[in-house]
Amino acid sequence: MKFPTLAAALITLAPTAGLAEGMTLTSAGDRPHMAGSLETFTGTVNIAFLFPPTDPFAASAATVTFLPGARSAWHNHPGGQMLVITEGIGWTQERGGEKHIMRAGDVVWCPPGVDHWHGATDQTAVSHIAVQQAGEGGAVIWGEHVTDAEYLD
Amino acid sequence: MKFPTLAAALITLAPTAGLAEGMTLTSAGDRPHMAGSLETFTGTVNIAFLFPPTDPFAASAATVTFLPGARSAWHNHPGGQMLVITEGIGWTQERGGEKHIMRAGDVVWCPPGVDHWHGATDQTAVSHIAVQQAGEGGAVIWGEHVTDAEYLD
Repeated sequence: MKFPTLAAALITLAPTAGLAEGMTLTSAGDRPHMAGSLETFTGTVNIAFLFPPTDPFAASAATVTFLPGARSAWHNHPGGQMLVITEGIGWTQERGGEKHIMRAGDVVWCPPGVDHWHGATDQTAVSHIAVQQAGEGGAVIWGEHVTDAEYLD
Repeated sequence: MKFPTLAAALITLAPTAGLAEGMTLTSAGDRPHMAGSLETFTGTVNIAFLFPPTDPFAASAATVTFLPGARSAWHNHPGGQMLVITEGIGWTQERGGEKHIMRAGDVVWCPPGVDHWHGATDQTAVSHIAVQQAGEGGAVIWGEHVTDAEYLD
């Protein structure tokens, strides 16, 4: 199952409001996946959706894999986001701050409205589970691409 | 860092309400862990906390590892819970339903208020990331232990 945009995938997966009856189980092949759009990412990125928001459960999640050199554009999350790094080594940076290494086992908290980017290092791939919650304006607000100079600084 | 109860760990980690300024990164050694209490689990269980709720971000998460034969007691989540199975093979069952196998790569949705249990199989360990949101009554309401007869049925 492929979706043209992250928003389309999440809307399609979202069940109707109100309580769902009974536990459900999905396997990796049941769930949508998509390449990270070149409008919002640089390099090769794979997004494998884990779960949509399921009212009243507000969080959604996806496993995002960045190949070496790949990164998100600058962006922020109106409702905040947690990254659970599951494989490899990557970089992340807050607007105006230093670039930081993030490794498998690390958890990164991105507060609401704080501009940042995250991705692989130029030498190593990274995967993380991204857990976010929609806020005023949605789950993510995208900015400009991260330049090579910013990325390698 | 060890905590006597899950509730104590989550309350201790929770920052004050309102926006936190700036991204944060924690490594596995920075975060609390605890054995699953024999009041609410059977067998050997390890709980490694990932993140607490961080207002307005309502979700909290932990990686829970069950050794063969170990399982939670019957319980439900007032706000719902998602399980992302990361390693191994386990079992899960909803009250009144059949026992199901859950494998690495599976995602299990436990709707609010639905009684269930989850854990390892009698032969294989399992690990999952549990993501939950507090609801009326908290994040989890515990019931009775799962008997050996129920577990092996």
